[in-house]
Amino acid sequence: MSGRKLRFGMVGGGRGAFIGAVHRIAAQMDGQAELVAGAFSSDPQRSRDSAADLFVAAERAYGSYREMAAAEAARPPSERLDFVVIVTPNDQHYPAATLFLEHGFNVVCDKPVTLTLAEARALRETVARSGKVFALTHNYTGNAMVKQARALVRSGALGTLRKVVVEYSQGWLARDIESDGQKQAAWRTDPARSGAAGCMGDIGTHAENLARYVTGLRITELCADLTTFVPGRRLDDDGNLLLRFEGGARGVLHSSQVAIGEENNLSLRVYGSEASLEWQQEHPNELIVKYLDRPREILRRGNGYVGETAQRVTRIPAGHPEGYLEAFANLYREAFRAIAAEVAGKPLPDDLDLPGIDDGVAGMAFIEAAVASARQGAAWVPVAA
Amino acid sequence: MSGRKLRFGMVGGGRGAFIGAVHRIAAQMDGQAELVAGAFSSDPQRSRDSAADLFVAAERAYGSYREMAAAEAARPPSERLDFVVIVTPNDQHYPAATLFLEHGFNVVCDKPVTLTLAEARALRETVARSGKVFALTHNYTGNAMVKQARALVRSGALGTLRKVVVEYSQGWLARDIESDGQKQAAWRTDPARSGAAGCMGDIGTHAENLARYVTGLRITELCADLTTFVPGRRLDDDGNLLLRFEGGARGVLHSSQVAIGEENNLSLRVYGSEASLEWQQEHPNELIVKYLDRPREILRRGNGYVGETAQRVTRIPAGHPEGYLEAFANLYREAFRAIAAEVAGKPLPDDLDLPGIDDGVAGMAFIEAAVASARQGAAWVPVAA
Amino acid sequence: MSGRKLRFGMVGGGRGAFIGAVHRIAAQMDGQAELVAGAFSSDPQRSRDSAADLFVAAERAYGSYREMAAAEAARPPSERLDFVVIVTPNDQHYPAATLFLEHGFNVVCDKPVTLTLAEARALRETVARSGKVFALTHNYTGNAMVKQARALVRSGALGTLRKVVVEYSQGWLARDIESDGQKQAAWRTDPARSGAAGCMGDIGTHAENLARYVTGLRITELCADLTTFVPGRRLDDDGNLLLRFEGGARGVLHSSQVAIGEENNLSLRVYGSEASLEWQQEHPNELIVKYLDRPREILRRGNGYVGETAQRVTRIPAGHPEGYLEAFANLYREAFRAIAAEVAGKPLPDDLDLPGIDDGVAGMAFIEAAVASARQGAAWVPVAA
Amino acid sequence: MSGRKLRFGMVGGGRGAFIGAVHRIAAQMDGQAELVAGAFSSDPQRSRDSAADLFVAAERAYGSYREMAAAEAARPPSERLDFVVIVTPNDQHYPAATLFLEHGFNVVCDKPVTLTLAEARALRETVARSGKVFALTHNYTGNAMVKQARALVRSGALGTLRKVVVEYSQGWLARDIESDGQKQAAWRTDPARSGAAGCMGDIGTHAENLARYVTGLRITELCADLTTFVPGRRLDDDGNLLLRFEGGARGVLHSSQVAIGEENNLSLRVYGSEASLEWQQEHPNELIVKYLDRPREILRRGNGYVGETAQRVTRIPAGHPEGYLEAFANLYREAFRAIAAEVAGKPLPDDLDLPGIDDGVAGMAFIEAAVASARQGAAWVPVAA
Repeated sequence: MSGRKLRFGMVGGGRGAFIGAVHRIAAQMDGQAELVAGAFSSDPQRSRDSAADLFVAAERAYGSYREMAAAEAARPPSERLDFVVIVTPNDQHYPAATLFLEHGFNVVCDKPVTLTLAEARALRETVARSGKVFALTHNYTGNAMVKQARALVRSGALGTLRKVVVEYSQGWLARDIESDGQKQAAWRTDPARSGAAGCMGDIGTHAENLARYVTGLRITELCADLTTFVPGRRLDDDGNLLLRFEGGARGVLHSSQVAIGEENNLSLRVYGSEASLEWQQEHPNELIVKYLDRPREILRRGNGYVGETAQRVTRIPAGHPEGYLEAFANLYREAFRAIAAEVAGKPLPDDLDLPGIDDGVAGMAFIEAAVASARQGAAWVPVAA
Repeated sequence: MSGRKLRFGMVGGGRGAFIGAVHRIAAQMDGQAELVAGAFSSDPQRSRDSAADLFVAAERAYGSYREMAAAEAARPPSERLDFVVIVTPNDQHYPAATLFLEHGFNVVCDKPVTLTLAEARALRETVARSGKVFALTHNYTGNAMVKQARALVRSGALGTLRKVVVEYSQGWLARDIESDGQKQAAWRTDPARSGAAGCMGDIGTHAENLARYVTGLRITELCADLTTFVPGRRLDDDGNLLLRFEGGARGVLHSSQVAIGEENNLSLRVYGSEASLEWQQEHPNELIVKYLDRPREILRRGNGYVGETAQRVTRIPAGHPEGYLEAFANLYREAFRAIAAEVAGKPLPDDLDLPGIDDGVAGMAFIEAAVASARQGAAWVPVAA
Repeated sequence: MSGRKLRFGMVGGGRGAFIGAVHRIAAQMDGQAELVAGAFSSDPQRSRDSAADLFVAAERAYGSYREMAAAEAARPPSERLDFVVIVTPNDQHYPAATLFLEHGFNVVCDKPVTLTLAEARALRETVARSGKVFALTHNYTGNAMVKQARALVRSGALGTLRKVVVEYSQGWLARDIESDGQKQAAWRTDPARSGAAGCMGDIGTHAENLARYVTGLRITELCADLTTFVPGRRLDDDGNLLLRFEGGARGVLHSSQVAIGEENNLSLRVYGSEASLEWQQEHPNELIVKYLDRPREILRRGNGYVGETAQRVTRIPAGHPEGYLEAFANLYREAFRAIAAEVAGKPLPDDLDLPGIDDGVAGMAFIEAAVASARQGAAWVPVAA
Repeated sequence: MSGRKLRFGMVGGGRGAFIGAVHRIAAQMDGQAELVAGAFSSDPQRSRDSAADLFVAAERAYGSYREMAAAEAARPPSERLDFVVIVTPNDQHYPAATLFLEHGFNVVCDKPVTLTLAEARALRETVARSGKVFALTHNYTGNAMVKQARALVRSGALGTLRKVVVEYSQGWLARDIESDGQKQAAWRTDPARSGAAGCMGDIGTHAENLARYVTGLRITELCADLTTFVPGRRLDDDGNLLLRFEGGARGVLHSSQVAIGEENNLSLRVYGSEASLEWQQEHPNELIVKYLDRPREILRRGNGYVGETAQRVTRIPAGHPEGYLEAFANLYREAFRAIAAEVAGKPLPDDLDLPGIDDGVAGMAFIEAAVASARQGAAWVPVAA
């Protein structure tokens, strides 16, 4: 990094938002970036109030991302935003990201990347054309032990991969809280703002991304039994999928937002012909590796035996637990490497390990395949490459 | 029990057998029964050697179950076997069980009950005609905390059931050990002795039985992706299934014998509209109950707050772990209640909690549906009622 | 074993007893021994009733161990007891064991071995003089993974031992249940029947035994802060000890019977200069081994990588949990090797791994040192060799 | 907070320091404070290099805390530091804290507060005289579930406290790495920089603080067996203590830095007459509560049933693990409430929950008592009030 903190603005993330606060902590945790502008809310006063909370100057608080893009693009280089963070409901990802890219800003965007696969592909074009950095916050891949898992698979230690079991279970939507005005629930269960899938888009896509990141394998076809358990809800709140991967591995992906008592249970197991691994998001500092003929191993973040890619995202020693926010911040830290290079007019780092628009396209292909399968009574369907 | 130990004989279970020894320990653990006869092997000398190991009189060691049935049926009442335990490979369950029932013996049989659904149905007829006790050793339902789980579901504490996730994963067949002459592997991977399914018949059927026992729900249709990962193997060694239950619950069942590092990972989760539960065979003394708005509870075997059906199968205080053998012995203890009644000419206990021929028929219907689905490329198929 | 089951009788263990039933299951689990006589209760009718429950002939049910010793000693060789199991409250261990040894019977005795160190030493003389087998049921050392732990220490894998942390915590005596007539509580809190220590004698001595068994090290001095938390109780119900071992290792031993929510939490950690290990009785199938510079290992019972002494006491495959009763039965199985040899007039096996009178003497020395320390305000005192 | 971020400077924490980076992350995580000055190293060039890394202006990088205090005290109000963070080795805490307090700065100081109890008491005088905020970073009490534990004890749910078992075990000093120039090891094992105790001062004091915070009880006397296991080391690297608390509770505290395989195992159990609790730093999002006659409960951070004091320090939803850094940041967030009040000339919040100089004095009294006890052969000694 060169001599100054990166400057960023936010779209969304005002008072009462969950994920906006997470992004701010993650982006600023390491003291490498500072928030200086924002269209925090579509209500201008609310946006200004949020700006004040966040020590953002009133003149850089906007009532819409369009206003923000125009105004910020006009600022002098010494004040110019190095990147924009988009943390709105899903429906605004595509127009906002497109607009900022077209105005020459690097973009960090929450997932799922767009409302539809078509939008995702269009955005891929825009990203390519813009030459800007586009990072998609599939934050769970920021965990050190997820990186260790991926490195293990790449090293061949697991042999040929045979089976993937991935799960993302939550219980907070077990009742119809959207009708009681719970804001987080309301937009996630609204097709207009969330997209064609509910649970499968909100969290199932994290499971898909995690499995792909660790195994390096694409899902080629799937069979998805999606259900809406809560009466009156308009989108799926539970789904069970069978998966087939390139190369012959098989898998199960199940996800729920009505699994009472589950909090944020994202878990992955990968079985190979030589060894297996297991990682659980609720115990993120451990990676369990299992062998046929020697003791099970527990690899713990921060130890000397952990590989380089995991060490690089390790802030504190073993036994001092890192958590969700640190993993999220790892993604930002990697994004900063790319953004700093872009700002300096240099090529992106060769070893960049950052989820981007390709992950977004793959995620939307997954969601659309799942929805299509479900509509056909859980038939097998191909997943668009 | 009345004044004497029950007498039993075995078919199978000679030197080197795994499950035979388990049955003997389970049957004799509580000092209520004693082994006095057996066709331990089809090799008469080997059968006699096993008899000697087991302190069984040489004259009651037989070279075939046919010989045993004829000879034992001719013994005087004071020596007569109260029941026969069948622990051969699957292909002999049907003929042996049929023969002993027809000779008037109560039967305890290992699972899966027969080679085919047709055989299972025929055996059901024989059982009914004989008036004898037929117990099927779905031993995992013998666990105290499985009984507690079932009682919780029955009490309505979980509300309407929504989702079932059940798994049975092992790794011991991850390589082609059947070609190296491993006896346990050899028959399990041989269609002639094992039946139409490998992994799904050997252990998937335990998962099905456990889910049905706890939830009280029948699987109405399923979609099964069965795979043989080890080259040259003749039966499936891995399977992933989507399930639909009567009443609208959905589920996932996955099972493997090539999941390296898994030992005997049979796990069940049941999610309802009010609460959820989780039980893991490798930690059998605990039942985890999860709520939407109060702390997760860990119910531990042997405590006063555990219900009556679980208490009845509890031998030792909380914190003194009971395991696989005690659960297996619980099934025998329940069988003895039935057998003692039958021997005494009394009706079976009203509250008998013993897996029997109906479980066998359901299990075979499950296996046949899974195999049929897989043969159709993992299509949805109904499960015969 | 030679051609027949071993015959045994019991002193104590009638209806309502806890540990008597445990001994019976453990002794008979493997089909190597059968119960044929007993002084189950000091009330002759109650003893006969228990005998009937246990299928023991009425003429071999006695109202006192003295009567039993005399009558059984007079039986012909074909009926003669191979061993006697003593499971009374502590105060009868010494006279009963002495009497049966003097009548030429092998003895299996519950712990602690006697009421006092002086009795234990006197009994050691009697055992030596008698030439009979004397086994003391420090059952926790029967666990396979405890044997693995001991083997690891002996192999030198831990380097020089530095620190031992051992704990045995229970909560069942958190209230004054002895005043409500709870039988198990009543004798354990009565100095006349239990001895000079309560908790420290009942379970602290198991912790001492486990630590010594695994480390091979004797405690040379200790400092014991013993407390009676429940008002009116006559013996300690909680104790915290600092330990110094021969060779320089230091340690902590804490034990409680008023630690609410603890069930049977016997846990051991041993730290060496090269590696460390951890074992927990409530998860007995695992042994955790920790290294300075490589991943933590979980050794699980029943796997091929586990050493021979642990394999020898393994009945069922990995992942099929063995528990408290199997560990207890392992001790019996080892006792049977010794008893069968003694009965056959042969020398005891060279590799016998059986707690006996020396463990009893060490245990009583530990208890007396703890009580002496506590009486001096938790001063340091030597432990008699 | 009022309109601007708080400004702070650091003493220590330059390149290569561990705890300095932790403080920076913790202080800045919530975007409420910014680092603007520092004496990061006693080597002026190194201090300037660190400043550049941290985006601190070169003119506010100092070669000594004395230089920094003088220069920063002279700055105009608009630039003035709101607080100074001291993260040097222990020997500089007292002089640096005294100097900054005397120059009118609020101070956040790492623990242990000073080298000696006398210094701690003198500093207490200085704090009182200065009227400034003095926060001591006993960071583990910042964990949400530690606050929940404390609230539970205060509510009376545990009844009368009987027993405390607290442990802080690490293994990183198992070998003589200080002789190899490991910087963190070097000063911690040097009496001149660390004080009279090694392990007991570095981490044992955290255990003491945690126990006192949760129970509200002071240790009145202790018996400490401190050992130096690594040859040549000049301070204790392991210690086992018996504790007596005001009100009659007893306890065990053991701590080690040579416990191979332990990473940062700080664990607390508190047993009362009605219930018990357990918290483990390596699994900080859970609090286990155990009862005599109802199921064990697992309280998990972020759920609605968790009390207000824990909720107040919760950033993200249940199941999204918070870790060491968030707990540390919680302490800073509470310090900011106090500092903002002080800066605004207002009284400190009534409900302030912030470790300060009294904790420092208590910690030094604990350390000195432990060392005194150990020097007397682990005799019982009183702990100064």
